[in-house]
Amino acid sequence: MPVRALWYANGVLSILDQRALPARVVVRKLTRLEGAAEAIRTLAVRGAPAIGVAAAYGMVLGFREGRYTPDRAARALRATRPTAVDLFVGSEVMRRAWSAGEDVERAADAYREKIVEECHRIGIAGAPLFARTRRVLTHCNAGALATVEWGTALAPLRVARERGAHLFVWVDETRPLLQGARLTAWELARERIPHAVIADNAAGHYLATGQVDAVIVGADRIAKNGDFANKIGTYEKAVVARENGVPFYVAAPWSTFDAGRATGRSIPVEERAEDEVLEFAGARVTPKRSRARNPAFDVTPSRYVTAFVTPDGVVRPRRLADALRHRARRSQ
Amino acid sequence: MPVRALWYANGVLSILDQRALPARVVVRKLTRLEGAAEAIRTLAVRGAPAIGVAAAYGMVLGFREGRYTPDRAARALRATRPTAVDLFVGSEVMRRAWSAGEDVERAADAYREKIVEECHRIGIAGAPLFARTRRVLTHCNAGALATVEWGTALAPLRVARERGAHLFVWVDETRPLLQGARLTAWELARERIPHAVIADNAAGHYLATGQVDAVIVGADRIAKNGDFANKIGTYEKAVVARENGVPFYVAAPWSTFDAGRATGRSIPVEERAEDEVLEFAGARVTPKRSRARNPAFDVTPSRYVTAFVTPDGVVRPRRLADALRHRARRSQ
Repeated sequence: MPVRALWYANGVLSILDQRALPARVVVRKLTRLEGAAEAIRTLAVRGAPAIGVAAAYGMVLGFREGRYTPDRAARALRATRPTAVDLFVGSEVMRRAWSAGEDVERAADAYREKIVEECHRIGIAGAPLFARTRRVLTHCNAGALATVEWGTALAPLRVARERGAHLFVWVDETRPLLQGARLTAWELARERIPHAVIADNAAGHYLATGQVDAVIVGADRIAKNGDFANKIGTYEKAVVARENGVPFYVAAPWSTFDAGRATGRSIPVEERAEDEVLEFAGARVTPKRSRARNPAFDVTPSRYVTAFVTPDGVVRPRRLADALRHRARRSQ
Repeated sequence: MPVRALWYANGVLSILDQRALPARVVVRKLTRLEGAAEAIRTLAVRGAPAIGVAAAYGMVLGFREGRYTPDRAARALRATRPTAVDLFVGSEVMRRAWSAGEDVERAADAYREKIVEECHRIGIAGAPLFARTRRVLTHCNAGALATVEWGTALAPLRVARERGAHLFVWVDETRPLLQGARLTAWELARERIPHAVIADNAAGHYLATGQVDAVIVGADRIAKNGDFANKIGTYEKAVVARENGVPFYVAAPWSTFDAGRATGRSIPVEERAEDEVLEFAGARVTPKRSRARNPAFDVTPSRYVTAFVTPDGVVRPRRLADALRHRARRSQ
């Protein structure tokens, strides 16, 4: 059975609690907007496309509670996390549907279906890049858990495997919250895809010694010029990949492209609690007098990106602005 | 009181057990060569210069046990870890002293004194580099714990501070064993040196956003052309520092320079147990079916090094071979 990050029926949003994985499979049943907002804030659900969908269903829960206006509901959900643009897209699509008196459950289902379908198309568009690739490095989790189904970075790998590619995945553990070691490894292990978890520090060693044929990651927000925000550490991998001539791909549905943002310089980067670095599983790792800093994302300039894998094909960074214009015209 | 990684008196080698820090200060008293070898193997004592000194005293313990030849004793100590050349230097110096019938305790004390004194001179030589620097990034622990006293990377910072520099240190936590978060932070916190621990992934973000003025690290083995092995992740930091025009310094006593090795390509890189990545504090982090890879070091090509900070001054990589030749002539 494929993994699903969340599902909705009859006023209940069910979320696979990603904080408990891989040790335990815990499903949280949410019936209120505030529950959805808290699940996003506390990373019970995470990954840019998935929190967009969670926000869409959060709007449904808010509508059903009967005590929100569409604007207030959208505002509450948007306040949870600043970096992933999908959160704003998902809540905005729903704010409009709700304001226009449309069936909000249908609107949220449609939004979810669009994301899932786009991720599948990312897989189909990106699979040829991995037809002759053997060893792929990925950072954080950009799998089904991050996108409801299929994944972004993992979608092309899944489709390439269906077509017979023999892939091995290097999984950056992705400190501080270990989304690679916990979540990507869990998805790959379920599907028996060969992989090895490595300390984030080791990625450079494998890139420099010719043991990585390609890197693919997801994104939290992509500016018009191709600069993009993604999980902290992505920038280092991109720089080291280019230094070693290893292609670096960024996979994302259209909801992650922020066509209103010229460059990555102004993308807001969330700084999370220092305890995520100072402690591990509730136990202090560092000296009591030590402080920590904990930026959750970094911004990688587009010059390090070989290509974006979009639902409508593989796009080089210098063609991205054109592709976004073309898409905007088409969807008018 | 300054930190000391180890000390010796009357047949007892005392080692500050670095695995227990920073939570507990545990001193292990060792009276047999095998105890010293085990302390090195299990990282109770670590850091290239410090394990060189531990091996020197391990030879003393072996001598006192009366059941080793100098050769067998040196072999047993060298077999513990492959990458740090200091281990071979420390045991070789002692093998010769023992074979020549010299006083082995005096020889080991002299070796330790030489390392401590060289580290102090590294501090004096390197301090001017940090006179006007404010924010310094370091990786792993290259402090007193790694070198008996002073440190390599931390020595110039300590001397610069004595001279009035106001430094702030970014401390890479240094997965998988967190020598930065546990040990470097502990040394800095004891001396009230302002610092922040960061996930290794965050170093690139701070380098790219102009928040790091210089990087300084230690080394485990430096080849004649300036390629060097150091804690896994060093290579990534060096590449990203150069990409952002941030100076990158490598500090080491002469025992870390392997004048017999032309380049870094042939430096043996230790691969440690995968549990160091798969587990945290004894608890499994990753799915049961997942595997890990765990190289403890990487090799950084000399083109990423701004300068080496040696006991005899700051040396640019292209002058390193000359400096080593000059030194070899002098010490003949």
